[in-house]
Amino acid sequence: MSINIPRGTKDILPGESERWQYIENKARDICRNYQYKEIRTPIFEHTELFQRGVGDTTDIVQKEMYTFEDRGGRSLTLRPEGTASTVRSYVENKMFGYPSQPVKLYYMGPMFRYERPQAGRFRQFVQFGVEALGSKDPAIDAEVISMAMEIYRELGLKSLKLVINSLGDKESRKAHREALIAHFQPRIGEFCHDCQSRLEKNPMRILDCKKDREHELMKTAPDITGYLNEESADYFAKVKQYLTAMDIEFIVDPNLVRGLDYYNHTAFEIMSSAEGFGAITTLCGGGRYNGLVEEIGGPETPGIGFAFSIERLLAALDAEGVAIQNEEGIDCYLAALGEKAGEYTVGLLHELRQAGISAERDYLGRKVKAQFKAADRLKAKYVAVLGDDELEANTITLKSMADGGQTEVPLDDFIETFRKIKG
Amino acid sequence: MSINIPRGTKDILPGESERWQYIENKARDICRNYQYKEIRTPIFEHTELFQRGVGDTTDIVQKEMYTFEDRGGRSLTLRPEGTASTVRSYVENKMFGYPSQPVKLYYMGPMFRYERPQAGRFRQFVQFGVEALGSKDPAIDAEVISMAMEIYRELGLKSLKLVINSLGDKESRKAHREALIAHFQPRIGEFCHDCQSRLEKNPMRILDCKKDREHELMKTAPDITGYLNEESADYFAKVKQYLTAMDIEFIVDPNLVRGLDYYNHTAFEIMSSAEGFGAITTLCGGGRYNGLVEEIGGPETPGIGFAFSIERLLAALDAEGVAIQNEEGIDCYLAALGEKAGEYTVGLLHELRQAGISAERDYLGRKVKAQFKAADRLKAKYVAVLGDDELEANTITLKSMADGGQTEVPLDDFIETFRKIKG
Repeated sequence: MSINIPRGTKDILPGESERWQYIENKARDICRNYQYKEIRTPIFEHTELFQRGVGDTTDIVQKEMYTFEDRGGRSLTLRPEGTASTVRSYVENKMFGYPSQPVKLYYMGPMFRYERPQAGRFRQFVQFGVEALGSKDPAIDAEVISMAMEIYRELGLKSLKLVINSLGDKESRKAHREALIAHFQPRIGEFCHDCQSRLEKNPMRILDCKKDREHELMKTAPDITGYLNEESADYFAKVKQYLTAMDIEFIVDPNLVRGLDYYNHTAFEIMSSAEGFGAITTLCGGGRYNGLVEEIGGPETPGIGFAFSIERLLAALDAEGVAIQNEEGIDCYLAALGEKAGEYTVGLLHELRQAGISAERDYLGRKVKAQFKAADRLKAKYVAVLGDDELEANTITLKSMADGGQTEVPLDDFIETFRKIKG
Repeated sequence: MSINIPRGTKDILPGESERWQYIENKARDICRNYQYKEIRTPIFEHTELFQRGVGDTTDIVQKEMYTFEDRGGRSLTLRPEGTASTVRSYVENKMFGYPSQPVKLYYMGPMFRYERPQAGRFRQFVQFGVEALGSKDPAIDAEVISMAMEIYRELGLKSLKLVINSLGDKESRKAHREALIAHFQPRIGEFCHDCQSRLEKNPMRILDCKKDREHELMKTAPDITGYLNEESADYFAKVKQYLTAMDIEFIVDPNLVRGLDYYNHTAFEIMSSAEGFGAITTLCGGGRYNGLVEEIGGPETPGIGFAFSIERLLAALDAEGVAIQNEEGIDCYLAALGEKAGEYTVGLLHELRQAGISAERDYLGRKVKAQFKAADRLKAKYVAVLGDDELEANTITLKSMADGGQTEVPLDDFIETFRKIKG
């Protein structure tokens, strides 16, 4: 009996894994240009971290975490997102004391949420994200947003829609919160159970509800724009000014609220407007979270970041028909005719590879014709043929697969000749 | 109160993460030359996979797995090693039917074992491994071994010791097994509890016991060499011949047995002989496992592979004093004097980065002097200084940090000028 892959997860196989490598390399290159450095945190953390850092009232924490006890009885959770872990590490490693400030970090790795598997949703998925900690300059908000856009742009996505909003500072959020409660309270009985409990805890999240989306009170709900105090409004104006200076188009959507509890000021999402991308069009979400570092036990520190799933990015690339260049062919296939020649190619192959030349030989005892077929499949640029007679005569035949041209080369000069051909 | 990282795990921080990237890139490049393609399997699998694929009698399965039930009541386990998952994917995705054979795969990612944390041992660690499935040509055994050696060599390790052995085929192992039972049976009471239960299940693993290492019967135990049948001996001779053809030195150690149940024929380990590397000197282990694919539910398929931990590789590099080149400095730091100039640099910075130039500006409202300090810390090759007056005059001053030379550049030509400087 065979054993299957766990539900909601998938293997990334050869042919597909090269696309992942390509995307990851691009993202890393851009991080280098933007001076974001990689951080790698463990796959699991103490459960409490996510209860505090993501928020007890969120769906993620209430319904979707992979939580278990280790053999020592500690409650651990597979990370459902990357910000809480990054901030935990920032605090634990006292990065607020680093000489270079702000601290600009990126991460890339698997995250886990126990959701109903559906098209484009996996229980294990890979997130790329950045966090800039230690600056409350609106220019860093613009930098973070521009970076997400730049990664998508560099990868070839064209149908993108950037939506931004400001959630304001604490004072502004409080004023808005009171207005929301006053708005929904009288008819809260008409809303879903979740919304009813959100009313007191975090009424802004009612605006995010999928079930009650069509309720008439949703359309008339007071939006944050009218409640921003002067400082918050100025901050938001600067972010918009900088995005404009960067030639980045955006739409302001006062209803953009983001699901997590700790956001304030800038919030943004990037959507795909490609046809056929499907119902869930959000590719990337981010925002400012001044206050989170304190929540995790660190000093008062402003922060902003974003995260996106690579699975969804790949889906967007597919929807726009953007092809990612696959691996090119190998440099040389060593075909052998006869047992002695076959054995000899083992050492020769090793020398080629040590010289940085991608090369292959047969490992199935195939006849020469089948070896040429294998070379074709590997898109070999050259096939070098060695027979027992040639081995005796100390030569090897080099055939260019591009033009069919053949040359006989002394065996001792083979590596050097090949190095020159390759340039 | 702050929340700490789980015991036995660690964060990889900026400064260190660049070393990981360097190693991973080198390993990927070598995989490309050797035609091994990346596979990515999930972090967790059905527990049964490891019970069958690693072996019920192993310490890993009996004592060290992170096993838990998901919300649907399925028993899942964080992968303790990479071979079982790779073979599960090979079977599930019917890779035995791929046109290119053998199927050559590599993986790189976190693995989990609940062990007592100690120097160089982590509960989450990263393994790089390869598997070649579908060939029983001794040349592929040599290729796999040479590849591990090549990765270490390319990274700069010099003090390496390659130890190989043959465990023979089924028939040879059976003959050896009987000899071992006959040897240990009369005095098995003097051995530890684990060894007593190994006597019937897998007596070869007694040779691996750390507790009974010094028992006199260990030294006189029959080694596999005398029990290899002709086919197995021939196979081993070819592997040695090929390694010699590749100029790879090795030592044959008839007591090398490997902990896992499914190995046969070639087994190998690579040790560091660097001084000060510590007690555990094994860097890499691998071998042939014909029979494992059937165990996981696939057709009869020969296989061979190896795995090594990147943590231990880094420790070996440290022990040999091999420095890995860190990130170089940024191309340009944009220093600003005055509010208008500061705001202007946001767009300019964006343009630089879009042109592929690594660049940075200040996000803390620092004075020019402190901005120059920040530029120094980032090892900036150039600092471009923009004041409000210069902005008015549409110029910017470019200062080379290597020779101190300064030039004034029209602001509109700045990106182009920089592109030329960078070459």
